[in-house]
Amino acid sequence: MASWVPIEQHSDFSLQNLPFGVFSTQSLDQRIGVAVGNHVLDMKALAHNDVFVGLDFDTATLQKSTLNQYAALGRDIHRSVRTFLQNLLSDKTPHAALLRDNDRLRSAALISMRDVKMHLPMAVGDYTDFFVVPYHAQNVGQTLPAAFFEQPLGYHGRASSVVVSGTPVRRPRGQFVGQDGKATFGPSQKLDYEVEFAAFVTHGQQKMGESIEVNDGEDLIFGFVLLNDWSARDIQRRETAPLGPFNGKNFCTTISPWIVSPDALEPYRTAPLRSGPWLPYLNGGREDSVYDILIQVQIQSKSGTFDVSRCNTKNVVFSFPQMLAHHTAGGCPMRTGDLIATGTLSGATPQEYGCLLEVTCDGANQLKVSNAQNQEMCRTFLDDGDSVIFTTYLPRKDGIGGVGFGMCEGQILACH
Amino acid sequence: MASWVPIEQHSDFSLQNLPFGVFSTQSLDQRIGVAVGNHVLDMKALAHNDVFVGLDFDTATLQKSTLNQYAALGRDIHRSVRTFLQNLLSDKTPHAALLRDNDRLRSAALISMRDVKMHLPMAVGDYTDFFVVPYHAQNVGQTLPAAFFEQPLGYHGRASSVVVSGTPVRRPRGQFVGQDGKATFGPSQKLDYEVEFAAFVTHGQQKMGESIEVNDGEDLIFGFVLLNDWSARDIQRRETAPLGPFNGKNFCTTISPWIVSPDALEPYRTAPLRSGPWLPYLNGGREDSVYDILIQVQIQSKSGTFDVSRCNTKNVVFSFPQMLAHHTAGGCPMRTGDLIATGTLSGATPQEYGCLLEVTCDGANQLKVSNAQNQEMCRTFLDDGDSVIFTTYLPRKDGIGGVGFGMCEGQILACH
Repeated sequence: MASWVPIEQHSDFSLQNLPFGVFSTQSLDQRIGVAVGNHVLDMKALAHNDVFVGLDFDTATLQKSTLNQYAALGRDIHRSVRTFLQNLLSDKTPHAALLRDNDRLRSAALISMRDVKMHLPMAVGDYTDFFVVPYHAQNVGQTLPAAFFEQPLGYHGRASSVVVSGTPVRRPRGQFVGQDGKATFGPSQKLDYEVEFAAFVTHGQQKMGESIEVNDGEDLIFGFVLLNDWSARDIQRRETAPLGPFNGKNFCTTISPWIVSPDALEPYRTAPLRSGPWLPYLNGGREDSVYDILIQVQIQSKSGTFDVSRCNTKNVVFSFPQMLAHHTAGGCPMRTGDLIATGTLSGATPQEYGCLLEVTCDGANQLKVSNAQNQEMCRTFLDDGDSVIFTTYLPRKDGIGGVGFGMCEGQILACH
Repeated sequence: MASWVPIEQHSDFSLQNLPFGVFSTQSLDQRIGVAVGNHVLDMKALAHNDVFVGLDFDTATLQKSTLNQYAALGRDIHRSVRTFLQNLLSDKTPHAALLRDNDRLRSAALISMRDVKMHLPMAVGDYTDFFVVPYHAQNVGQTLPAAFFEQPLGYHGRASSVVVSGTPVRRPRGQFVGQDGKATFGPSQKLDYEVEFAAFVTHGQQKMGESIEVNDGEDLIFGFVLLNDWSARDIQRRETAPLGPFNGKNFCTTISPWIVSPDALEPYRTAPLRSGPWLPYLNGGREDSVYDILIQVQIQSKSGTFDVSRCNTKNVVFSFPQMLAHHTAGGCPMRTGDLIATGTLSGATPQEYGCLLEVTCDGANQLKVSNAQNQEMCRTFLDDGDSVIFTTYLPRKDGIGGVGFGMCEGQILACH
């Protein structure tokens, strides 16, 4: 499917993708946009100019400053809007005339990505981080919890700490046990990233106390983002028993700016690591319930940019619909804009490790890497000034256009 | 301080209190009110009728459907509004004429408590539950975590699960190990309450990455509520390692409807269980940094209403300002409407146990109680149909009017 908008061959944002985000420019207030090639299509302008003719949905939802109200419309409407936008941007359909041949609207609504600032796409109600990847614990020699294969274990993260890619990450201070064995307070000495994949929820149950079936879970996912669950290992270690992660995690969580729809990821479906047996409430749904997406991890330091590892989103023992079913099994209310993440997406080999805790064995070993420019970098944990960058590497089986997430990036700032 | 509004001697809502809540009636939409005696004073009506003459604040904040925007104005304005309302309702000041002698406004704005339905007073951004009471763990024979006395341990709860008193509580289903030692899924067999005290935050840091000093914490608390952290012990046990409580807690958390200001609680200040030594970031603030408030726990069953225990809010090793300082030490953003709770407020003796897990030693013993009507009740955990009721018992040292929280109540409904 070719577009009249120029789209580079390796662009993340072909007509197969069309992810939604929230942006602003120097002259435009915060609003909803769709990424296409190196441009952002201004949904507020399109809705305001009655471009969505013939589509039966509340176009006011596309004129808000977050995607929550649009997400709440449900998957059927998202699919019809997606198809409409593909036709609008295609060079082979009459719909294209609505925008391509309208000079005033086109020049107003099609904005160069260079000129936009991205914002958090959804107002996050609650953020939940699961732990459904066995290799993350195994790679650091930990025994998996007793219930690991029987339920998607998870904890509630900090919604206020979720930020969009590009937001600097302040190195946290906290309590930890120093090298002298005494409790101390100061800048974390073990600042780490975690490679994760996350889903935004369209809407939850009708009533508190109700649960979501695995079979219904697919239709409750608005889309996906890459997620960096920044972790301060020393702070985390001291606080974690018995209540789980707290200050070791709640200082920042970064997500990629574009929400990629399940429809765009349909060609990349695969099966998870396990297919059961489970207790009945976790049964149902498709066999190819997860995605085969490689996430490339890079550290950009003063000495250059370095590949660290590649993690695959398929290395999970439970799918998002199963996570939703478990999360709501007791009646926990799920709401539009809630965010659920997989936990660290490590694989079994060092090339697939999803955090420096694994790569350096909690700092016991040094990570030594070089790049094509013969630059070198050594790390145990992250230094001030380092940027951690996640991008996707999606093999295009049919060769007709890429699907990616853009960048999930954050740079470490020194403590205040 | 006497009022021209009738206030019974043992009312929770004297002129010393004047707590804020959100209510509706059959004819009035959801709005902010202040409790006085057996009446609710409609703040929207007062603001709309320009009653707050001479006070320099944005009265539109009192015409919203939650208290968030009013809370964000800060403690100085809350204090001046409180003083203004005390004068307006007092029978000894000329201000009283503004309302008492305005028949039309008085009859519109002063509403019988019988006619109101209470709502969640704040939109809760994030909800954090701390664990700062040593007796809760000790009473069930658990060792306190290594860091217990050195930092306020806590975990992120589920904001979407916070409901106002009176909301029914659906017994959760979940995964637990049955009597045969096998994992099973079904209605929790160990449904419990936890007696807690909680604070709503006026506002947080200016910028992400900044922290809050203990000395500044007092001024960031809008007010307090009673909180019931409903817990399914069997579900909780299976899931809790290593990430902490999840489905065992996230099905429901009940708060009392009226937010009592720090100013109203000033006469009840006392010192916490410990005064240090702490790492320097936890130092500061007043010595009498907590409150001496007894919370009465009752179970209302088919066979009658029974006193179970009394818990005191002073049984903590850290104050709310210290919790805020620790919570934000690494830069975690705090926002208007965030809710932080103490954890189970148990005391050292059985009469002060804060949950049935303690009272019955995890179901090993039966709780057997009788009441003044010679009715009897036996329980290990909660039955369907039981209501759990928290009320406050505040000794009035100066005899000039009561301060209470109203009721924190929820009734258990059978599983769907």
